[in-house]
Amino acid sequence: MDKMRVGVIGATGMVGQNYVQLLQGHPWFQVTHLAASPRSAGKAYAEAVAGRWVMDQEIPGEAAGLIVADAGDVDGARKACDLVFSAVSMDKQAVRELEERYAAHDLPIVSNNSAHRWTKDVPMFIPEINAGHADIIPFQRKNRGWKKGLIAVKPNCSLQSYLTPVYALIEAGYPVASMIITTLQAVSGAGYPGPASIDMIDNIIPFIGGEEEKSEQEPLKILGTIQGGEFVNSAGPAISAHCNRVPVTDGHTACVSLKFEEKSPAPDEIIEIWRAFRAEPQELGLPSAPDPAIIYREEQDRPQPRRDRDAGRGMAVTVGRLRECPVFDIRFAALSHNTNRGAAGGAILSAELLKAKGYL
Amino acid sequence: MDKMRVGVIGATGMVGQNYVQLLQGHPWFQVTHLAASPRSAGKAYAEAVAGRWVMDQEIPGEAAGLIVADAGDVDGARKACDLVFSAVSMDKQAVRELEERYAAHDLPIVSNNSAHRWTKDVPMFIPEINAGHADIIPFQRKNRGWKKGLIAVKPNCSLQSYLTPVYALIEAGYPVASMIITTLQAVSGAGYPGPASIDMIDNIIPFIGGEEEKSEQEPLKILGTIQGGEFVNSAGPAISAHCNRVPVTDGHTACVSLKFEEKSPAPDEIIEIWRAFRAEPQELGLPSAPDPAIIYREEQDRPQPRRDRDAGRGMAVTVGRLRECPVFDIRFAALSHNTNRGAAGGAILSAELLKAKGYL
Amino acid sequence: MDKMRVGVIGATGMVGQNYVQLLQGHPWFQVTHLAASPRSAGKAYAEAVAGRWVMDQEIPGEAAGLIVADAGDVDGARKACDLVFSAVSMDKQAVRELEERYAAHDLPIVSNNSAHRWTKDVPMFIPEINAGHADIIPFQRKNRGWKKGLIAVKPNCSLQSYLTPVYALIEAGYPVASMIITTLQAVSGAGYPGPASIDMIDNIIPFIGGEEEKSEQEPLKILGTIQGGEFVNSAGPAISAHCNRVPVTDGHTACVSLKFEEKSPAPDEIIEIWRAFRAEPQELGLPSAPDPAIIYREEQDRPQPRRDRDAGRGMAVTVGRLRECPVFDIRFAALSHNTNRGAAGGAILSAELLKAKGYL
Amino acid sequence: MDKMRVGVIGATGMVGQNYVQLLQGHPWFQVTHLAASPRSAGKAYAEAVAGRWVMDQEIPGEAAGLIVADAGDVDGARKACDLVFSAVSMDKQAVRELEERYAAHDLPIVSNNSAHRWTKDVPMFIPEINAGHADIIPFQRKNRGWKKGLIAVKPNCSLQSYLTPVYALIEAGYPVASMIITTLQAVSGAGYPGPASIDMIDNIIPFIGGEEEKSEQEPLKILGTIQGGEFVNSAGPAISAHCNRVPVTDGHTACVSLKFEEKSPAPDEIIEIWRAFRAEPQELGLPSAPDPAIIYREEQDRPQPRRDRDAGRGMAVTVGRLRECPVFDIRFAALSHNTNRGAAGGAILSAELLKAKGYL
Repeated sequence: MDKMRVGVIGATGMVGQNYVQLLQGHPWFQVTHLAASPRSAGKAYAEAVAGRWVMDQEIPGEAAGLIVADAGDVDGARKACDLVFSAVSMDKQAVRELEERYAAHDLPIVSNNSAHRWTKDVPMFIPEINAGHADIIPFQRKNRGWKKGLIAVKPNCSLQSYLTPVYALIEAGYPVASMIITTLQAVSGAGYPGPASIDMIDNIIPFIGGEEEKSEQEPLKILGTIQGGEFVNSAGPAISAHCNRVPVTDGHTACVSLKFEEKSPAPDEIIEIWRAFRAEPQELGLPSAPDPAIIYREEQDRPQPRRDRDAGRGMAVTVGRLRECPVFDIRFAALSHNTNRGAAGGAILSAELLKAKGYL
Repeated sequence: MDKMRVGVIGATGMVGQNYVQLLQGHPWFQVTHLAASPRSAGKAYAEAVAGRWVMDQEIPGEAAGLIVADAGDVDGARKACDLVFSAVSMDKQAVRELEERYAAHDLPIVSNNSAHRWTKDVPMFIPEINAGHADIIPFQRKNRGWKKGLIAVKPNCSLQSYLTPVYALIEAGYPVASMIITTLQAVSGAGYPGPASIDMIDNIIPFIGGEEEKSEQEPLKILGTIQGGEFVNSAGPAISAHCNRVPVTDGHTACVSLKFEEKSPAPDEIIEIWRAFRAEPQELGLPSAPDPAIIYREEQDRPQPRRDRDAGRGMAVTVGRLRECPVFDIRFAALSHNTNRGAAGGAILSAELLKAKGYL
Repeated sequence: MDKMRVGVIGATGMVGQNYVQLLQGHPWFQVTHLAASPRSAGKAYAEAVAGRWVMDQEIPGEAAGLIVADAGDVDGARKACDLVFSAVSMDKQAVRELEERYAAHDLPIVSNNSAHRWTKDVPMFIPEINAGHADIIPFQRKNRGWKKGLIAVKPNCSLQSYLTPVYALIEAGYPVASMIITTLQAVSGAGYPGPASIDMIDNIIPFIGGEEEKSEQEPLKILGTIQGGEFVNSAGPAISAHCNRVPVTDGHTACVSLKFEEKSPAPDEIIEIWRAFRAEPQELGLPSAPDPAIIYREEQDRPQPRRDRDAGRGMAVTVGRLRECPVFDIRFAALSHNTNRGAAGGAILSAELLKAKGYL
Repeated sequence: MDKMRVGVIGATGMVGQNYVQLLQGHPWFQVTHLAASPRSAGKAYAEAVAGRWVMDQEIPGEAAGLIVADAGDVDGARKACDLVFSAVSMDKQAVRELEERYAAHDLPIVSNNSAHRWTKDVPMFIPEINAGHADIIPFQRKNRGWKKGLIAVKPNCSLQSYLTPVYALIEAGYPVASMIITTLQAVSGAGYPGPASIDMIDNIIPFIGGEEEKSEQEPLKILGTIQGGEFVNSAGPAISAHCNRVPVTDGHTACVSLKFEEKSPAPDEIIEIWRAFRAEPQELGLPSAPDPAIIYREEQDRPQPRRDRDAGRGMAVTVGRLRECPVFDIRFAALSHNTNRGAAGGAILSAELLKAKGYL
């Protein structure tokens, strides 16, 4: 199979760099187009990111020499690639318009930006949970008059640590009434430069702007349904999130207390549900799909960010410490890699899903 | 007023050192006796702690030259002091017996050790909450046949960050039904050496042995009552605690979601309750009592360990981020200094209370 | 004595904040004027720094309500104060001109900025070393036609950890030929926000722009002499500096290997020289002068940033690990607080010196 | 080629675990024997390390089920393997005797322990520097009456960050007279648990017991020659090392100032020498040999521990910041992975060398 030509817009920022790194050697996708602000346009990518390449591996050779385009040049992009990942960082209205311009020019776009997360006909994917939301694409194309173009987004990184294990329980017949969650989030979640080091030495910050709202609301769309060609939120669960920034490079941890709507499964059964959990990405054998998708660890002090974030090449969710909750039904700790699973990796998996389903 | 002569047993460990530091220049107490294991006995204190003094200030001059006694030598202690702080670290049965021997020899003992926390006639003090529990002392003395001796303890450090603000609400007429709490605890809470540095660099540990149980159960005794000469636990609130170790030297942070039994006060009223809160230690003007006892900060990103732990000379509780909880009624973040408020400082305040009430 | 009215320009930045904090309760100086960029002008200081106050203590009450002036309004400053500390951050030429305008308007200025460090008639003070450099002031005033105005500066923070102990040896008759130094510098030295936290977690950065050059050259002016009304650099010692950024909030550590020009004193004699060292600030009893100025610690693992940076209220230099060097003569580790001794505190001490000498 | 059967003694400690991890999938060696103290003997390896497995990857499946033997059972080892890696941790005399017993029983042993580093007929390998020291083996065997047995060791981890680049210059015709070095060493170099976390938060420790002596003396043997069947130290270079512990998990950084005996090559030539450097491990294509062995980075702020330690699968040395030294001739920063290159990986490479040369 010939690889599909893909572009990254917003390619010079931290998430854009992560796309470039993760797409290196991808079996389906080949990076052929990198775009950023006019300031970077015209430079070789290696030059454009010189002094601000923050990935742990080197700039992939195939990307280093690409001449960075202006992200506003949609015609140029259309000639250079057939799929675009968006990591642009602008005000929301500008992002919405730019992404729609790409789609209107026959370029499918999968975006990290939050601008389109609440657009009624745009799917927000965690592919293990809502692969079926791809069914919105025909409606979206019809609404917009797009032929090959489409827009899909991924949710905020903070909720990807726990929503898949929670969904696995719901899907197994145990609907969830409410959850109280505290997250301990890595600094890379704030992009580069992110928090000042002086705020993260001998300290934690019990606040991340906008993060609690996203953690509470986005799950309802992800767990929602398509009705009449648009998304209708799930009625529950009710979620309360306390979001904290901690001195960790990568890996968001969540402490979850959870109340079921009705009966609670026994701990053994829950672990069995998690370990047996496979969803469409696993069934389809998508290249970035972790298998298993959920890893349950028996050790009493896991998951830990440094030791568990890279599980499943940074795409799995690791869960541990399942125990009864004296207030709700159960509680546990869960962790995922916020820039792989939670950002660029999650978007690539979503694109793989769309391709496997014939939308690309 | 002549100062009372006080001793510290277990004086060479981290908590013992903290006693020595905090008692320096105390207006009521003068350290005249330091005891530890037979291995340290006979050495000058400065020599005994050489290479393992971990306080940030120097060894106080008045303590440096004291000859360390064997903590088992109760007769010697009786001659050298009139009050003992216990920071011994042994198996629980041995601690219980040793502390009782001191008390039986007319030496009141205020202890950091958990051995006597659940003894039916031993008070477990957070003086702002349960100063009235000192009323158990006459029963305790009668039960044991002690004249001047007594035993009092302080609770675990993990709950002191949030229990006082919660109590302030209860006392203001808003009983609490349940709480789900996640703590982000400093490494000094584990004593020295505590966690390995390799586990605390680019990492957090979502587990602290025994800490969740203490956080859930000890509040019930502290909020309990004396009936028939012994403590009867409060029936509530129901508490679920998720305890995490984070790379912070001092200062435990707690993220709290709270459900009232009946009506919930408005946020403004809650802040007013906290700011107006004064209890017996403040009324009595105890030397170590912080005033205000509870500090509410308006900034959206406070409390933070490094910036707030020293508030009220490390004895106040700092609260912030009060907001409605989508699942329960309210939620907030709270912080206290775990080795001052949460350990030696809390015990010293308890001793001051007992003295002010005439039990010493 | 009435306190002298002082102003701080660049008052909203990190160094400016440190001035405000350190000057609180100062026996000689009273902050009556705070100035910053036009963006902050007109706001109360507390409002101007809201959300970016990074000191560990609260905003002093006396400063909180002061209305921030425009730093460009020299006439306003002249009415409001009689001495100015400069913590402005602009391009060098602009700083030079602004500071000269203040001085020309009869306002003595003591500056943290590097703009005037190499001006031939401007003294660069480490008061324990070159208090005599105040003798340049009459020349400076004559050169510029200033009556009461003057400009004095402090050197870079990186060299204050080791230059005083080295000077103590020179002054005791042991001239130094060369030094090879490696510094481990705290993040606060870079101002706020300074290094990104992701670069300071599980990492060090072996480079700080411009810092090695300053560390190598500034000592030569500090150790220099006044000849013909201007400064002439000392011919030596030759210095090589390797400057590293490490995950420490405050406190620069330096590892020093040192070769004397001729004979080397014995280790015991060196320690004696350091411990006996007193200079003009100590003799004059300047309020911010640490006494002792140099602390030698016997423990083999000191100085350490967190344990030693606050020695002498953050103004002393702590030295340890003196031992023979297999390549040069001796080697040792030295530490000082980079924002107290190394920045605002050092400038305040310089101002105290100028006042004691009658130049203010 | 059939794989050689190898054992690890001291297999349950941190270095032992690292052997087990690094040998997984090794093309020449197959782990067939794991031994430790009698306390662990008889348990499956996975069980023996439960709760203290500190590697970032999982226990390799091939090792997990091996029954741990008693390290004192040399006969058992002889039956189970043909080569032994020693990571035992005991007093030196005991280590020396135990390792000699293995060798006397026809088991070649490559050791991380320092006990035999100064034995006159035992080679201390950095294979890129002194592969020729394998020529001592016939003398060693003759001296001891061993047929197939032998003992080889690796040097301390602190010097592997800079000695290879220095050797490359010596070998290119630029002998080195003296070096002053400051190391910033990772906590994993101290084994597990190593430094207490409270000592490594907002802090550095300017001392590591024994490390400076090893850093200064071991290079002289490594650069030495074989004369009359035993090692004779190199006369130089003279080395002064300042060793610091910093809050980094893995990766030792060194800041090096270096004086040549005679002329100094130009910076461009030095970089060319480093980049062109290939030694016997690279020529022989040893499986663990990094190629290139030395990586020179042009960025002004590299090498950095987190970004460069894994270069060459953790076996390369990364150098940067080459510049003239105002006191000596040149200076630079260098970095290597202390537990891969500096410990288990270095020993495995040494074993590969011995095998390629026919001694195993």
